[in-house]
Amino acid sequence: MLGLVVMIRRFVAAARTAWRDGTFRGAVSGILILLVSATIFYTLAEGWPVLDAVYFSIVTGLTIGYGDLVPTGPVSKIFTVLYALLSVGLYVLVAASLASALTKDAADRRARRKHRRSED
Amino acid sequence: MLGLVVMIRRFVAAARTAWRDGTFRGAVSGILILLVSATIFYTLAEGWPVLDAVYFSIVTGLTIGYGDLVPTGPVSKIFTVLYALLSVGLYVLVAASLASALTKDAADRRARRKHRRSED
Amino acid sequence: MLGLVVMIRRFVAAARTAWRDGTFRGAVSGILILLVSATIFYTLAEGWPVLDAVYFSIVTGLTIGYGDLVPTGPVSKIFTVLYALLSVGLYVLVAASLASALTKDAADRRARRKHRRSED
Amino acid sequence: MLGLVVMIRRFVAAARTAWRDGTFRGAVSGILILLVSATIFYTLAEGWPVLDAVYFSIVTGLTIGYGDLVPTGPVSKIFTVLYALLSVGLYVLVAASLASALTKDAADRRARRKHRRSED
Ligand SMILES: [K+]
Ligand SMILES: [K+]
Repeated sequence: MLGLVVMIRRFVAAARTAWRDGTFRGAVSGILILLVSATIFYTLAEGWPVLDAVYFSIVTGLTIGYGDLVPTGPVSKIFTVLYALLSVGLYVLVAASLASALTKDAADRRARRKHRRSED
Repeated sequence: MLGLVVMIRRFVAAARTAWRDGTFRGAVSGILILLVSATIFYTLAEGWPVLDAVYFSIVTGLTIGYGDLVPTGPVSKIFTVLYALLSVGLYVLVAASLASALTKDAADRRARRKHRRSED
Repeated sequence: MLGLVVMIRRFVAAARTAWRDGTFRGAVSGILILLVSATIFYTLAEGWPVLDAVYFSIVTGLTIGYGDLVPTGPVSKIFTVLYALLSVGLYVLVAASLASALTKDAADRRARRKHRRSED
Repeated sequence: MLGLVVMIRRFVAAARTAWRDGTFRGAVSGILILLVSATIFYTLAEGWPVLDAVYFSIVTGLTIGYGDLVPTGPVSKIFTVLYALLSVGLYVLVAASLASALTKDAADRRARRKHRRSED
């Protein structure tokens, strides 16, 4: 349980470290803009309720793809392929940024610990 | 076959290296807490047997998503989206931590080998 | 919104950095060649329209796998397994190359900033 | 097209670099052993033909999960969850090893190029 508290703290710290870099901020903005666009598209093109369109878009972006909802028309299939390519790329980018920030923070912690020990 | 024994040893060693860092420990705790929460949620909200709820939760967290079980109600869909976002993130984190620990251990082995050779 | 513009710029810059390396260029070529081969195969072996074959191939390569289209014959299943192993590997490679180029570009930016500060 | 030839060469070279390290060799052995075990299990427990069992196991390991074949009994579901956790971990490990070997090879190439230039 203590590990979880430490982890949430480090995760928040890593998110802040990542946020300072434009890449992470841009990737998150990109995901949100794609999500809104996809939601609008699927409600119009497939006639899905808004919640279903959001649910399908996130399930696709995370590459889960349950298959309970699928694009039916040719335009929907083309849109889905383009949305998936961009969206999956951005999710990978966010994950990579967070992982790299966590690694960087851990390296900083190790360096500070070493520094402190060498001062004793 | 020998490679497998070496690999299991290194994997266990890497898991220990990763375990020493709070991030990995927290991510594993987070996955377990999410898994228990999701199991309770799906048994209540969807009326699934406990095994099915655990099976669905892990199949979702690993982004497999067979689609034999899917959330049906609106609350279930919202829960699934939130669970998936958090859970997939934590699985990625665990994978990244293990991979980085394996790489770190390999670098340490190389450094020790070099050191030994330079001592000869 | 500004973050998104910065992000698109950096993404394009990272794509250029990655493109200079033969690995990334080769992985993108590999994905396109596999995509064309798979499209030809599925139109002939499964009788799918070209759009469906492209849609299925990309949905498989990104590991989404909705399951609305699946290989039916034994030859199709063997082809799908081989295509998936190669294709998923190349998608991972492209993602890793882009992520590493973005990280490298970010490190370069930090180094330049530090350099400028030390000159003041 | 030239890029593809260069890429295949580098990929083979990276596979060799990775192969020298016990981790990669062990991960590949682990995947094969899991694949054989899963094939035997599903032919017996689910009565699937061997090709279907292999096809399902690889489609699961790569996290595609079409859902055309799914475990039906409780023992099958427990086996699938354990197989997926181990298998996905090993596929990630193989991908990470190959990516790190490719990066290492690229760094070596850059270092040699720099060295040659400084010698001129
Ligand atoms: K999937
Ligand atoms: K799926």
